[in-house]
Amino acid sequence: MKTYLDCIPCFFRQALEISKILKVSKDKQKKIFDEIAKAVIKFSLNNPPPLMGKTIHNIVKKITKKEDPYSQIKRKSNHLALKIYPYLKKKVYHSSDRLQKAVELAIAGNIIDYGVGSDFGKESMKDIKKQISLNRINSKFFKYKEFKEALRKSHSILYLADNAGEIVFDKVLIEEIKSLYPDKKIIYAVREKPIINDALISDAYFCGIDKVAQVISSGCDAPGTVLSLCSQDFLKVYKKADMIISKGQGNFEALWGKRDCIFFLFMAKCPVVAKEVGSRVGEKILLF
Amino acid sequence: MKTYLDCIPCFFRQALEISKILKVSKDKQKKIFDEIAKAVIKFSLNNPPPLMGKTIHNIVKKITKKEDPYSQIKRKSNHLALKIYPYLKKKVYHSSDRLQKAVELAIAGNIIDYGVGSDFGKESMKDIKKQISLNRINSKFFKYKEFKEALRKSHSILYLADNAGEIVFDKVLIEEIKSLYPDKKIIYAVREKPIINDALISDAYFCGIDKVAQVISSGCDAPGTVLSLCSQDFLKVYKKADMIISKGQGNFEALWGKRDCIFFLFMAKCPVVAKEVGSRVGEKILLF
Repeated sequence: MKTYLDCIPCFFRQALEISKILKVSKDKQKKIFDEIAKAVIKFSLNNPPPLMGKTIHNIVKKITKKEDPYSQIKRKSNHLALKIYPYLKKKVYHSSDRLQKAVELAIAGNIIDYGVGSDFGKESMKDIKKQISLNRINSKFFKYKEFKEALRKSHSILYLADNAGEIVFDKVLIEEIKSLYPDKKIIYAVREKPIINDALISDAYFCGIDKVAQVISSGCDAPGTVLSLCSQDFLKVYKKADMIISKGQGNFEALWGKRDCIFFLFMAKCPVVAKEVGSRVGEKILLF
Repeated sequence: MKTYLDCIPCFFRQALEISKILKVSKDKQKKIFDEIAKAVIKFSLNNPPPLMGKTIHNIVKKITKKEDPYSQIKRKSNHLALKIYPYLKKKVYHSSDRLQKAVELAIAGNIIDYGVGSDFGKESMKDIKKQISLNRINSKFFKYKEFKEALRKSHSILYLADNAGEIVFDKVLIEEIKSLYPDKKIIYAVREKPIINDALISDAYFCGIDKVAQVISSGCDAPGTVLSLCSQDFLKVYKKADMIISKGQGNFEALWGKRDCIFFLFMAKCPVVAKEVGSRVGEKILLF
């Protein structure tokens, strides 16, 4: 997906939010904004938004000298999600279609996000349980039948992670897939370096994803799997995979229209992406 | 009031909105954004936000080659407000405190604004009547007693206009002041050149303000009376006036803390200004 002009005010808003989280001094904040302004001038709108996301967060890191500004937040999200895990498992267990419930939960888990809009990113246990209970599914954007069919046919599945905490929800879905198809090969790819609250290898291990899938890095440190930034090793896996399960808006922005048999599971969190999809903001999306 | 970092994403949002109103091509929009980004780098946060407002709109004018992009919108607002005028007069007539009602209406008229937030600026007759009926007054920010007392004591009153359309609401207030104190000298100052939907001399004449006050230009073409941009003639009037009635958020941003006996009548339209005042967004403010 290319970048829309509507994304530009949002780039500055993101920088403002992270500056507030980090309690950056006003002078440094202005410096951050000036650097982003320079980057905006150079930025081509033909690039996907996560590429600018990477630039913004590199600027913040450089000026604040904090390599992983969201480390505490990620830790908190992982702990919170692990606490919710038994609740998620119970939800799946009591469903008539367990796989579908696990898919719905994996999408609901995408509410744990510090990259977009101020309505998201300040989640408590209560908020997440509320989000789970909301049935914001529009059948037009919920291609479950196709998803199930692709799953049945595919041998190797590449699962692209999004945020810390959210990955526990992914684990629930992977466990369901594994219980249906024990022989499928599932590879779970996370980001290479800290970027917003996106999951890293350490988060995947902390949440026990390595128990259910092979965990790898995409080599990419943008808040979305921008192929030009990925490692050669990852690209081989990406090309060879029979099916891709892509989580989150950032991966959607980076990979929408890039290959076949890729399923995008995310919550539409901003008006630009909602418009691109044709949905409303806040809807749960399973797009093919 | 100085500019907050929170204002910077909003500068781009303003540019985006005006670009959409003008149906500017994507290429030109990006050019506008790049120019604004350059201006942001040069901009000192010690300046009031309307100074950047002026820069933004000058950039838009230069790139779109439209001298008065909001001319149609202003015409529409004037017509709409003139249609509402008899309704406003009736409201005042049936009030136990006519002056207070006229003050409240003048503040409510400040809803006609294309400079801030997307909730504002798309008003219909129904919206404005609804706004009038809402009693969003917090007595903490409604210094009516002081306003009435200052009015009684002052001989020369300088009234600083804000937007086209809204000026009809000002007319109602000026008429009330005139009926209480026929001898007061009221000077009504508008902007020098087109800036957003701010009222110009032509709007003041069109809405008949010249029948109730002496209409002058402030010499300023920012969306707020930034003193360093005003004409010497205006500054003389500004200094000599016993009392100033300042309408709108832009004038508040430009003049807050600049002199005594100045009353700010506006709706708090953005979180930054609401925070500065201590109010909530959407509240009607009469500040001393």
